[in-house]
Amino acid sequence: MGTSSILDKYRQEINQLLVDIYPEGPRSLAKPIQYVLSGGGKRLRPILTLFCANACGGNKENAMPAALAVEILHNFTLVHDDIMDRDIIRHGQQTVHSKWDDGVAILTGDAMLSLALKLINQTSSLREKQMSLFIDGLLAVCEGQALDKEYEDQLNVSLDDYMNMIDLKTGYLIGLSAQIGATSANIDLDICLKLRNYGRFLGRAFQIQDDYLEIFSNSKEMGKSLKSDILLGKKTFLMIIALEKDRKIIENYLHIINKDFASGLAKIRDYLKESGIVEDTINEVNKNIELANKQINSLDIKKNDLLYLSELIRKRGS
Amino acid sequence: MGTSSILDKYRQEINQLLVDIYPEGPRSLAKPIQYVLSGGGKRLRPILTLFCANACGGNKENAMPAALAVEILHNFTLVHDDIMDRDIIRHGQQTVHSKWDDGVAILTGDAMLSLALKLINQTSSLREKQMSLFIDGLLAVCEGQALDKEYEDQLNVSLDDYMNMIDLKTGYLIGLSAQIGATSANIDLDICLKLRNYGRFLGRAFQIQDDYLEIFSNSKEMGKSLKSDILLGKKTFLMIIALEKDRKIIENYLHIINKDFASGLAKIRDYLKESGIVEDTINEVNKNIELANKQINSLDIKKNDLLYLSELIRKRGS
Repeated sequence: MGTSSILDKYRQEINQLLVDIYPEGPRSLAKPIQYVLSGGGKRLRPILTLFCANACGGNKENAMPAALAVEILHNFTLVHDDIMDRDIIRHGQQTVHSKWDDGVAILTGDAMLSLALKLINQTSSLREKQMSLFIDGLLAVCEGQALDKEYEDQLNVSLDDYMNMIDLKTGYLIGLSAQIGATSANIDLDICLKLRNYGRFLGRAFQIQDDYLEIFSNSKEMGKSLKSDILLGKKTFLMIIALEKDRKIIENYLHIINKDFASGLAKIRDYLKESGIVEDTINEVNKNIELANKQINSLDIKKNDLLYLSELIRKRGS
Repeated sequence: MGTSSILDKYRQEINQLLVDIYPEGPRSLAKPIQYVLSGGGKRLRPILTLFCANACGGNKENAMPAALAVEILHNFTLVHDDIMDRDIIRHGQQTVHSKWDDGVAILTGDAMLSLALKLINQTSSLREKQMSLFIDGLLAVCEGQALDKEYEDQLNVSLDDYMNMIDLKTGYLIGLSAQIGATSANIDLDICLKLRNYGRFLGRAFQIQDDYLEIFSNSKEMGKSLKSDILLGKKTFLMIIALEKDRKIIENYLHIINKDFASGLAKIRDYLKESGIVEDTINEVNKNIELANKQINSLDIKKNDLLYLSELIRKRGS
């Protein structure tokens, strides 16, 4: 089977297992949990876990609980982040806090986290290695999100600050997805760590690309609200470079955006293209994909599916 | 040293360890975490953990990580519950969402949970036993809180429903605190389970007493808002019996409370006293304390400190 067919097969299997993850329990929890976990999404993280397990000679069955756990952890962060960012659309459907209310969304996230922990805890031979990774991942995404919110109110956020923030908020969990798949194959620690780094660079590429797609796609395609991000003062790769290049112009455009969103956005888009920032951004994405691939090129593992995944991410925007 | 002095000593030690639990990290997380964990509270749960460890021949050092973890888990639920209930005061100080905002409070809770998990995960010899208990406890408190919120909008909540809800929301975690202390002493499983049941009955007594104290103390003493609970339609032991006894009168008083809180509350208090519901409530608290003590009376453990704790809880209201 080609990588693309394996990927589809895995995605279907993951989706089915996620829908059935919490059949019992109070309806006000079970319904939104099922709603979130059947809501689509690319399933990048669990597929990366399964691919890394395969690449290291492991098997799908041993890797699946951890794969589901990282996907649930990821969705837990989305449910809570959507409350904080007041986003009303995610993956083309209403967010939990907007369909129900904030209280339901907070609890839904919390309960999802316990389901993810249960999955990690169930495979006794791997529990010890995987639990520490998972708990550290949880703290990392909280810290990344905390910095993301702190930066909204800060005028001077450097590119280093930004990179550190996205490494915690996005890269850490994608790195964890790769590493936790490798651990399920019981392979050497140094290979696990290389795969973690592969995931982290992939995560950087993914987040910077997200920043780009958000400002250059319409909100339907991205499935979430660009407007709220810009109005909140969200710091993205492009906006940080733009603010460093010419703070006055950008502040002026943001001022226009507050009054007339469409015309302000058009001005910002033009500026980003003409100033070369768009080109820099695409280069940065490609650079990180290359860095990711470099981590695994020298490894004696079956890396074809992983390289396929790298290309899939690289081409996402085009 | 007498039990009362040991208790004070433990409480001080717990408080000190909690304040220092997360010195690094983004300020928007570190500050509210320290604020919550230095905010007072009786420390009933971690003290119960340490007392159970001692009672079973264990020691404080081995039990302390789990003791801190249950207290942090408990505080995590308070931070998130306070958002859902829109409570602005807790332990005599502003709640996190009211001092900062909802986003900070959501993240603070999430990060606290990861700190609690880290503590459980750090003691390698006990990790396996304690982690499962802890994860189940997390799901139980989520489910209990979910039911509590669901019941706010339901007219007919039976006493059985209520008991099931408080067993999940309050009893489960107090039972866990006891059990996890016993496991740290490596004692037989049946003793661990008896201590869990001891904790669960104690938890029932505690919650029913809380329901009583909330309606009969002023909000300063309880440190949280009675008004919000009544207006939200929170189901308590007393209100469920009252609604079963005479729905029309109570609904009339709740109607008055919406217009004139003080006079409506006075009417409800009078009714609860005159109808014998207050007496029933105090009897129910005592019954559960007795049931708790019965669990441990036949055990060959050092139970003095635990019986002291039972009495302390029994006398809390008087």
